[in-house]
Amino acid sequence: MKIKKLENQIREKKSFLCIGLDIDLDRIPSHLKGEQDPIFSFAKEIIDSTNKFAVAYKPNIAFFEAQGLSGWESLEKIINYLNSEYPEIFTIADAKRGDIGNTSNMYAKAFFQNLKFDSITISPYMGKDSVEPFLSFDNKYVFLLTLTSNSGSEDFQLKEISDTSNKLYEEVILKSKEWKNSNNIMYVVGAKNVKEISRIRKLVPNSYLLIPGVGAQGGSLKDICENGLDNGLKLLVNSSRSIIYSSSGEDYAEKAMLAAAKLQEEMEKYIIDKGLVL
Amino acid sequence: MKIKKLENQIREKKSFLCIGLDIDLDRIPSHLKGEQDPIFSFAKEIIDSTNKFAVAYKPNIAFFEAQGLSGWESLEKIINYLNSEYPEIFTIADAKRGDIGNTSNMYAKAFFQNLKFDSITISPYMGKDSVEPFLSFDNKYVFLLTLTSNSGSEDFQLKEISDTSNKLYEEVILKSKEWKNSNNIMYVVGAKNVKEISRIRKLVPNSYLLIPGVGAQGGSLKDICENGLDNGLKLLVNSSRSIIYSSSGEDYAEKAMLAAAKLQEEMEKYIIDKGLVL
Repeated sequence: MKIKKLENQIREKKSFLCIGLDIDLDRIPSHLKGEQDPIFSFAKEIIDSTNKFAVAYKPNIAFFEAQGLSGWESLEKIINYLNSEYPEIFTIADAKRGDIGNTSNMYAKAFFQNLKFDSITISPYMGKDSVEPFLSFDNKYVFLLTLTSNSGSEDFQLKEISDTSNKLYEEVILKSKEWKNSNNIMYVVGAKNVKEISRIRKLVPNSYLLIPGVGAQGGSLKDICENGLDNGLKLLVNSSRSIIYSSSGEDYAEKAMLAAAKLQEEMEKYIIDKGLVL
Repeated sequence: MKIKKLENQIREKKSFLCIGLDIDLDRIPSHLKGEQDPIFSFAKEIIDSTNKFAVAYKPNIAFFEAQGLSGWESLEKIINYLNSEYPEIFTIADAKRGDIGNTSNMYAKAFFQNLKFDSITISPYMGKDSVEPFLSFDNKYVFLLTLTSNSGSEDFQLKEISDTSNKLYEEVILKSKEWKNSNNIMYVVGAKNVKEISRIRKLVPNSYLLIPGVGAQGGSLKDICENGLDNGLKLLVNSSRSIIYSSSGEDYAEKAMLAAAKLQEEMEKYIIDKGLVL
């Protein structure tokens, strides 16, 4: 059970750090550009140097898609590398997919069967039958977008629904709990929404929350832990750019390791302060 | 201007037919399976045989993604074939993407710059800054999901928002009109929502509507035309499976042509009945 491995990792590493692989060819160190597959080389070094401090990796699919065929090749190599070298690591395809049933089924096939990711991020806009195809796979998980950290999250996600007085993002969470195999659902909550993290933690006390937006997007780890961390330790906090682009020189992997170690250390402190791991 | 070409095509062909390329390797005729790229061979024959009756093609990206690298190769060949052989044809990447700004920008690069699609379908859940990156390209268009035709559309899209008494899908449309370069937005409206098509037509009288769900999903062309067709002729009606899988034998391209011709004939009748084209 991959989810059990994730739980064990969080307790052993005293870390709930997810590292986002938003790998932009324009931002990787120039000495890598002569390599046959600079994106894979970069990712491999980042993974090798940071995995002691991280429990999950989240490739951002758009960045690979933007490179065309070679990008998909790099992505395939990265996920295969993670699955073979670090089988305990949890993997998230940050793809924000979602379509009518037979189409969602194709996306699920692409990311769960072919690429063998453990989980995928999904947009809830099209409702139940657009998400359920992803929930029908054993040991595979959906991170459902609820309240994101971008400014546009206010446009719709925070609107109140008349008949329930819930905000749309709450409605998404409550509805999703009724869906088939809803125990395979985890939730994406942007880091800037501190009050709402606490509210969401209460709505889904037994579900993992994935919280992006720490670092480059400005979210505070302390606030997240105060509001999202409890006995279950079912939390993943993602940081991408502020780790992987810590240095643009030859020491990039070492600097990424230091950035990851610093976050892990902070996480360990909050875990211990709360008395959550003996 | 590609949009002018689309308008001209609709008037010349007396058709607003979009053909969805949801190409499932398990459903294409068995005699093609020995070909080097059966998906491209199938698509090419379908396009060659039906383009007299259609004004747009809409590859469903999930079906290509599910085939891995070879699927992306097939997709690239198909879009290149459409752009070189039929430059007047409007192309839609049915991808349902949407993410925070810098990530949406990568998706836009993938579909607009690299693959050279004219337009892409986008989910509105993350709001303004998740859509605007797609709107910043000249001569490129966004089809924003509003009210879809699947059963899950009732979960959120039809919910009433407290402060405006609009349904969520109406809120999406009204908000989107305020976004930068909103004249590059077109709207996806599922065919089963006949009453709402009429309502949406009034909200965005000058925008194209893309209406999927005719054929296999059961929508009626007559109802759509009565509610969505007016002087502007800014309508695209999509049919996928009921055209491309008209026959599973060697006559598949001919049968697809007959299915497309039948729909075009019906469309011409509604256009003429309404006195819209002299």
